[in-house]
Amino acid sequence: MPSLLDLPNELLPLQRVLAHSLERVEERFDLQLHSDLPPVNRLCEHVERYRGKMLRPMLVVLSGLAAAESESALDPSSLISDDHIAVAAVCEMIHMATLVHDDVLDEADVRRKGATVNRLHGNEAAVILGDYLISAAFHLSSSIPGDVGREASLLIARTGMTLCTGELLQLDRRGDYSLDEPVYFEIVDRKTASLIAAACRLGARLSESAGAEVADKLESAGRKLGVAFQIQDDLLDLTGVQEVVGKSLGKDVVLGKLTLPVIHHLAEASPTQRGRTLAILRQSGDFDRPPSDLLRGALESTGSLAYARQTAVTLVDESKRLIESLPATHARTYLLAMADAVVNRAF
Amino acid sequence: MPSLLDLPNELLPLQRVLAHSLERVEERFDLQLHSDLPPVNRLCEHVERYRGKMLRPMLVVLSGLAAAESESALDPSSLISDDHIAVAAVCEMIHMATLVHDDVLDEADVRRKGATVNRLHGNEAAVILGDYLISAAFHLSSSIPGDVGREASLLIARTGMTLCTGELLQLDRRGDYSLDEPVYFEIVDRKTASLIAAACRLGARLSESAGAEVADKLESAGRKLGVAFQIQDDLLDLTGVQEVVGKSLGKDVVLGKLTLPVIHHLAEASPTQRGRTLAILRQSGDFDRPPSDLLRGALESTGSLAYARQTAVTLVDESKRLIESLPATHARTYLLAMADAVVNRAF
Repeated sequence: MPSLLDLPNELLPLQRVLAHSLERVEERFDLQLHSDLPPVNRLCEHVERYRGKMLRPMLVVLSGLAAAESESALDPSSLISDDHIAVAAVCEMIHMATLVHDDVLDEADVRRKGATVNRLHGNEAAVILGDYLISAAFHLSSSIPGDVGREASLLIARTGMTLCTGELLQLDRRGDYSLDEPVYFEIVDRKTASLIAAACRLGARLSESAGAEVADKLESAGRKLGVAFQIQDDLLDLTGVQEVVGKSLGKDVVLGKLTLPVIHHLAEASPTQRGRTLAILRQSGDFDRPPSDLLRGALESTGSLAYARQTAVTLVDESKRLIESLPATHARTYLLAMADAVVNRAF
Repeated sequence: MPSLLDLPNELLPLQRVLAHSLERVEERFDLQLHSDLPPVNRLCEHVERYRGKMLRPMLVVLSGLAAAESESALDPSSLISDDHIAVAAVCEMIHMATLVHDDVLDEADVRRKGATVNRLHGNEAAVILGDYLISAAFHLSSSIPGDVGREASLLIARTGMTLCTGELLQLDRRGDYSLDEPVYFEIVDRKTASLIAAACRLGARLSESAGAEVADKLESAGRKLGVAFQIQDDLLDLTGVQEVVGKSLGKDVVLGKLTLPVIHHLAEASPTQRGRTLAILRQSGDFDRPPSDLLRGALESTGSLAYARQTAVTLVDESKRLIESLPATHARTYLLAMADAVVNRAF
């Protein structure tokens, strides 16, 4: 993600603080997962290679900085406490656990341009490794002292439950071509946006001087960003290039998961076109085929790809408006640039 | 488990306290899992039917009572706090999560005399449901206030990690017929005994008047009981009757998991017999066949079933000696009866 941002010179010092913080997060992550058993460490090393955009840790750190009163301190990295680093590592661990388990559910073979855990070590190892990551995340969050530590543990655990209910709702409606936008947004809010929102909230809450209002604003901004992020993921699954995105594509259609462009198309298409599209969708499921040019053509015919793109852009704009209401800091500027990157990324 | 116990009359009042406490645990369990989404609740109701022996909640409650200074209070149920109930529900949730995920890993069809979640709702639902249970457990443990709440959260999360490392070690050595007793005990200690030990420790820790020594003793007693419990499970998998045990049997051999009787047999058998047994074991894996009379005959020929049984009995005796060193209370007597039941059960 950072490489995507065209940063103005004034943000370069903050970029260095961020890079240093992310190094601390990686160290905390590895330390927390380290085991006395070699087979456990081998699997964890595999997961460490999954690390990609580090979106959630970045949001914890930037929210922490944006919520701190005086960014003008000589060393802004002093505003990022060990608790920020711990929460950032916790969010990334929970995220990794969902990736590892999702890949089992989706029978995906490729993740971050490498083989998935399930492909290389089997479904059993992937299921247990995900459980290990979840437990390690809760152990780390439980180690954060004080009332704010307890608040973090409760929110992280509650978010873990919410993530699962989103996944279960999606599973329950898999292959149901009557799924509408409200249910789609309910699923996305739970399975994707909830953790991103929690990362923003906790980053702010851990900055001592931050008021409750700032945490609420950052949580809302994160939630909108999270939904936009998922819509962009859905678009990439339909229109992306696997070599660029770096993970198995076309899985949504094959698995009967309805995404925003498809929902919009089915609602807008003529009865004849609708019938043709449903046939394409059902065939994709039957033959494990990636989404064809035919499907993309159909989606274009009702402007459904553009509609989804526009929905994501609108959410990003709403998120930016919330961020803009925070005090003017470099961290705020950085968050605004990240918000734009969410819908401009090709991976 | 309670139905197994031939309880003396003096324990009947305690039996009522225990039954009432377990009702409170069930209520807390159901309340914690309840969701606003019907598909989530349907799955949770399925899990609630898994509830069997409630071994871990019983141990939390009995350890709490055994560790309390004055059991002579008019109403012993007043010694069991909401925090005891919460920790008991947490332990049961973690246990349920391991059952649900184990059934996915083992491709088991039957659990507690009913169809497993994976059989009825698919592997995907089972994986996510397990994650939901783990998250719900950590959420509940994070809600316990004070330092002892934090201690409970840390121990539960650490135990969750330990459970997973035990499962991963077992997976790593699956089909490895050179696995020896030390590795077997390492696996069992992690994947089974750790949670039972934690249940006993936390039950004691939550009794305000209890000293640190009592918690240590109960933890050790629980650990030994846990190992004995697993050995008995292994024996039932080889020699039990599926209708009585109520879950798919013979899975250990089919999945290449070496258990104590088999490890002992392979170490003690003549080279010829060893070769014959290895052929039987490998065939079981290839053809998904349950352990045959042939295998049981082989194990009998080296006294390996008796050896495993004796190992479990010795562990139970060691556990009882630790329990006997606690002050004389009805809870202590009950724990001693439970310890005996671990190796006398046929299910």
